Amino acid sequence: MKLSGVMPPITTPFQDGKLASDKLKSNFRKWNKTGLSGYLVLGSNGEAVYLNEKEKIRAVEISRESIPTSKIMLVGTGMESTEETIRFTNQVAKMGADGALVVTPSYFKGSMKPQILSDHFMAVAESSRIGILIYNVPQYTGINLEPEWVAKLSEHPNIIGVKDSSGNIGQLSEVIHLSRKGFAVFVGSAGVFFPALCVGAAGGILAVANLAPQECVRIQRHFNKGEMRSARALQIQLTPLAKAVTATYGIGGLKLAMDLAGYFGGDPRAPLKRPDRKIEEELKKLLLRLKG
Amino acid sequence: MKLSGVMPPITTPFQDGKLASDKLKSNFRKWNKTGLSGYLVLGSNGEAVYLNEKEKIRAVEISRESIPTSKIMLVGTGMESTEETIRFTNQVAKMGADGALVVTPSYFKGSMKPQILSDHFMAVAESSRIGILIYNVPQYTGINLEPEWVAKLSEHPNIIGVKDSSGNIGQLSEVIHLSRKGFAVFVGSAGVFFPALCVGAAGGILAVANLAPQECVRIQRHFNKGEMRSARALQIQLTPLAKAVTATYGIGGLKLAMDLAGYFGGDPRAPLKRPDRKIEEELKKLLLRLKG
Amino acid sequence: MKLSGVMPPITTPFQDGKLASDKLKSNFRKWNKTGLSGYLVLGSNGEAVYLNEKEKIRAVEISRESIPTSKIMLVGTGMESTEETIRFTNQVAKMGADGALVVTPSYFKGSMKPQILSDHFMAVAESSRIGILIYNVPQYTGINLEPEWVAKLSEHPNIIGVKDSSGNIGQLSEVIHLSRKGFAVFVGSAGVFFPALCVGAAGGILAVANLAPQECVRIQRHFNKGEMRSARALQIQLTPLAKAVTATYGIGGLKLAMDLAGYFGGDPRAPLKRPDRKIEEELKKLLLRLKG
Amino acid sequence: MKLSGVMPPITTPFQDGKLASDKLKSNFRKWNKTGLSGYLVLGSNGEAVYLNEKEKIRAVEISRESIPTSKIMLVGTGMESTEETIRFTNQVAKMGADGALVVTPSYFKGSMKPQILSDHFMAVAESSRIGILIYNVPQYTGINLEPEWVAKLSEHPNIIGVKDSSGNIGQLSEVIHLSRKGFAVFVGSAGVFFPALCVGAAGGILAVANLAPQECVRIQRHFNKGEMRSARALQIQLTPLAKAVTATYGIGGLKLAMDLAGYFGGDPRAPLKRPDRKIEEELKKLLLRLKG
Repeated sequence: MKLSGVMPPITTPFQDGKLASDKLKSNFRKWNKTGLSGYLVLGSNGEAVYLNEKEKIRAVEISRESIPTSKIMLVGTGMESTEETIRFTNQVAKMGADGALVVTPSYFKGSMKPQILSDHFMAVAESSRIGILIYNVPQYTGINLEPEWVAKLSEHPNIIGVKDSSGNIGQLSEVIHLSRKGFAVFVGSAGVFFPALCVGAAGGILAVANLAPQECVRIQRHFNKGEMRSARALQIQLTPLAKAVTATYGIGGLKLAMDLAGYFGGDPRAPLKRPDRKIEEELKKLLLRLKG
Repeated sequence: MKLSGVMPPITTPFQDGKLASDKLKSNFRKWNKTGLSGYLVLGSNGEAVYLNEKEKIRAVEISRESIPTSKIMLVGTGMESTEETIRFTNQVAKMGADGALVVTPSYFKGSMKPQILSDHFMAVAESSRIGILIYNVPQYTGINLEPEWVAKLSEHPNIIGVKDSSGNIGQLSEVIHLSRKGFAVFVGSAGVFFPALCVGAAGGILAVANLAPQECVRIQRHFNKGEMRSARALQIQLTPLAKAVTATYGIGGLKLAMDLAGYFGGDPRAPLKRPDRKIEEELKKLLLRLKG
Repeated sequence: MKLSGVMPPITTPFQDGKLASDKLKSNFRKWNKTGLSGYLVLGSNGEAVYLNEKEKIRAVEISRESIPTSKIMLVGTGMESTEETIRFTNQVAKMGADGALVVTPSYFKGSMKPQILSDHFMAVAESSRIGILIYNVPQYTGINLEPEWVAKLSEHPNIIGVKDSSGNIGQLSEVIHLSRKGFAVFVGSAGVFFPALCVGAAGGILAVANLAPQECVRIQRHFNKGEMRSARALQIQLTPLAKAVTATYGIGGLKLAMDLAGYFGGDPRAPLKRPDRKIEEELKKLLLRLKG
Repeated sequence: MKLSGVMPPITTPFQDGKLASDKLKSNFRKWNKTGLSGYLVLGSNGEAVYLNEKEKIRAVEISRESIPTSKIMLVGTGMESTEETIRFTNQVAKMGADGALVVTPSYFKGSMKPQILSDHFMAVAESSRIGILIYNVPQYTGINLEPEWVAKLSEHPNIIGVKDSSGNIGQLSEVIHLSRKGFAVFVGSAGVFFPALCVGAAGGILAVANLAPQECVRIQRHFNKGEMRSARALQIQLTPLAKAVTATYGIGGLKLAMDLAGYFGGDPRAPLKRPDRKIEEELKKLLLRLKG
C-alpha cells in the first residue's frame, strides 16, 4: 500500500451528544466513492481530545468496517505519555489500522526539547506493530519539530512518514529533501496543497477533504499529469473554503460545511460550538463558488 | 474554610512506573507538619496529563485520607471537553474535594475565544457541587484569559478563585482589583510570590512548596506582619531554586530536588526524564544555599 | 545626583507638523513645579524615531534650558549602529545631558544575540562621557535582555542603570538582585509601578507621568514611608489611565490625554494619529476618575 | 520595464568603516554580466539602518551610475515617519530610481493596525513620483500585512508590487490571487523561491543572489520553460547556502560568503560582526557544494 494521495482527517459525528455510528457509516459510503486514497481517524478534526477511550475504540471499529482494504486507514494515537501512546497504538493495530499518526506531546512545552521528542517517537516506533507517522501541528501544540529532527527519525524503519500542518512550505521542502527515500511527507494545510506537491509532498491530509474530496483529489491528479495551471487554478478556488473550515471557523465550521455539502456534520462537542446563521450563509457562498 | 496561604501542586510519585501510594502518604505526613494551608492534587505538576482515570481516582483517594480537614484540598479536574470536566469535577466532589481547579481548555487554540472559555467555565460552575477555581497557565496552554473576563466570571457564586501562573504581576493586580470581594486570587509562580502578595494575592500555589514549604510560608507570614524587608529577602533566596524546579528543569527537576530535600520525588513519566548528574549537583547547591 | 524617583519620557509637541518649542517650554514650566525627579528626552514616547537630527538637537537644547540642575536630564540616544550611538551620546553629553538611555538595537533581531548586545553596550559605555542606562523594551524591539546579562553589564562603572519596560516584575526583581549595588533600576510600565517599588526599583520612567506627575510621585512617597495600603490604592486608581495612554491608544492617546489634563499634547506624527471623539470621551472619564 | 526576475538586495561595502565606492562599483561590474533583472539598493541587507543620509545618497549615486538602464533599480526608502518616507522617496526618484521599496513602519508595533499601515502606504503612493513596492518582513518588523490589505493597496496605480519576506507561501499565493493583475509579487526568501514561482510570483529579491546570482536566475529559467524537476533540484542545492547567509549567520555571513565567492563583502557595521573561522569553513563547504 502506497502512502500518498488525499485523505480527510474525518470528523466524528455526534447526535444528542453521543457518537452517531450510522452517520459515520453513511459518510464513509459517500467518501468511498471518491478518489480519496484513505482516511485519518481520530485526528485533531476528529475531536479526539473530546472522546473517551470507549468512544475512540468505537470510532475505530466503525471505520475499520467501513474502509475498504484498498484504501489506507490511519488512526491518531498520540497521547502525552509515551507508554499510553504505545498501548493505544498497539490496540488500534490489533483492530486493523494500517498506520498510526502520533502527535508531538506538548503539555509541558518548555520540557519538550527535540531530544525528548525524538526519544518519544523512537520508543513508540520500537514498540509499535504498525508504522507510525509523526504529526507536527504547531498551531495546536505550540511546538515545531525541525526538519533535521524529522529527517533523523525517518531513518527508523517503523517511522514511515510525517503529517506537517505548519503551513511552512520551506520546512516541508527541507523535510522531503533531508529524509530517507520513501518517507511519506503529507501536508496538513489545504491552502498550500498545490505548492506542497510542487516541492515533492506525497499527498495531503486535509480537513476540507471531508466535504470537498474530489476537488482536492483533482489538484493532485492535475499535478501528476504536469498540468500545473489547472492544478493551481483549482487550488485558488479551494483556498477560501479551506481556510474557512479550519483557521477561521474551526471544527464547528467544518461540520456545518459538511452538512451543507451533503455529508453529516452535526455539532461539535462543547466548548466548541456550531457557528451562527451569518457564518452559515458565508459558508454556503464559499461552497457554491467552489462547487458551482 | 478560607482560601489563602501556600499550597503545593503536589507531585505524583511513581515506582517501577506505577503510582506509589506509600510514597505519597509519607510525603503528606511531612507536609502536614508544615504551615501549608492546603494542597492541589492532580495539577500540572501532578503529571495529571500522564495519568489514566483509575490512577487519578487513586491519587484523590490517598490525598483525601492524608489531608486533615483543617487544610484545603483542591483537585485539578479540567479537561478539554466541558462535559468530561463536569463529570470528573462531580466525581472528585463526591470523594471529598473542597474545590476544583479547572484549566482553560486549549487544544483548539484558535477557537478558544474568550466567550467560548467563559461559557465553558460557566457551564462547569453551574453543574459543579463544589466551588471551582480558574486555572490560567499560558506557558502550557498557549492561552491567556484576560483580567476583564476573569472578573466577569468571578460574579458567579460557584467560581471562587483563580490560579494565575502567567507570572504577570500587572495582570494579577488587575484581576484582584476587578473581581468581586472574596474572590481568591492565587499566584502560580514562586518567583513572584512576594510582589503578588504586595498587590493583594490571597496566596500561592507553588511547585517549589513541594520541597521548601516552610520557606514559602514564611514569606507570607513576614508579609502579613508588615515585615517587608524580611519577606523580600526570603523571596530573593527562594527565587533561584523556584526557577530551577519549574522553568529550567521542569517536573524532572522538581522531583529530583524533592529527593534531595528529604521527600520522595522519584522519576517523572516518559517522555519527561530525570535530569542528569550535573543538574543534580546544581540543584544540591541551590538547596544548600536556601536551607543551608 | 541620585538616580531615582519618577521621570516622564516627555512627548515632543508639534504644531503644523513642526517641533513646537514654546509648547515644550510651557510643559516644562508645569512639570518643574511637581515632584518629578527628572526627565527623559527623546524616548520612545518622544517620537524619537520620527525626528530628524536637527529636531533632536533642538529638543535637547530646549530641554536643557528648561530643566533645573536639581532635576535629572536623561536623553535617549540609542541607534541601530554602535558608532552612531556613540557619536550622538557624546553630542548630547556636550549639550549637558546627565545620562543617556540606550535602547537595544533590534532591526536584525535574529542576529542580536546577548553577546552582540553586550558588546554594543560595552562599546558605548567605554566611549561615552556620560553614564548610560540600558533600555529594555521588548514590546517595541522584539528583544528581551535577560537579567544575567544586565547584571554583567552593571559591572561597568559607566553603565549606571536600566529602564525595563517589559512589565515583568520577576525579571525586574532579578535584575535588581543580581546587579551591582547602586545600579539604578527603573520600571517603564506605570501599571506595575507599585510592585516594582516593592521589589526594590529606584523609580519609574512612566508615560502617564507626562499628564499625572503628582499621582505617580505620590505612589513612591507613600511607599517610601511604608504606607503600603495607600500606595497600592493609588496604583489601582492610576492603572486604567496608564494602560489607556500606552498599550491601548499609544502616543496619540497620550498626547490627547495631555491636552485634556492641561498640558500641550497635540498630534503625533503620521503614521500615528490622534484618536477619535469616542476615545477622547473615554480618556476624559479616566482622567476624571483619577483626578476627581 | 517589466517587474520580474531575480534581484539581489545588494550589500553595502565598507572599508575602514567607510562606504567603499570602488568595491561597490566592482561588484556591480560582476553582477551586470549575469542574468539578474535588477537590484535593490538600501534594503535590509544593504544595512540601510546603519547608514546616515549622506551615505545613503552616495550609495544611490554609485548604483545609478553602475546599473544599466536595461536593469531595474529599486531603492529602499521606508522610514518610520510617513513624511520622511515621502521626502526620501522623491529624493531617490530625482536621482533616477525606477521604484521604491517601502517597509512597514514598525517601532510602535501595538499602534500599527492595518488601517494605519494602509494610510501610510496610500499617503506615500499619492506623493511619490515613482511606483512603490510594499515590503513585508515580519522577522525584522514584528508586523505582518495580511493578503487582504495588500490586495486593497494594489488597487492604487502607484503601488506596483510587494516584496514578501515572510516565507509564507500560502500568504504569497493569496496575495498573488487577490491583488490586481500586473501587481508584481516578489518573494524575499530564497529557500522558497521555487514554490513561490509555482504559485505565481513574478520573481525574487534574494540575499543569496548577491553571491550566487546565476544559480537563482537558473531556477526561474527552468521554471519558465516548464522544467519543474530541474528547477526543484536547483532549489534543493541552493537552500542550505541561502539559509546560512540569512537566518543563520545574518549579514555578517552574507558578506563573508561574498568574499569567498569572488565579490567584495567585507565587514558589516557594529553591532553586527564578521563570523569566525569555523563559520567561514562551513560557508566554504556550502559554496563548494553549490558551485561545484
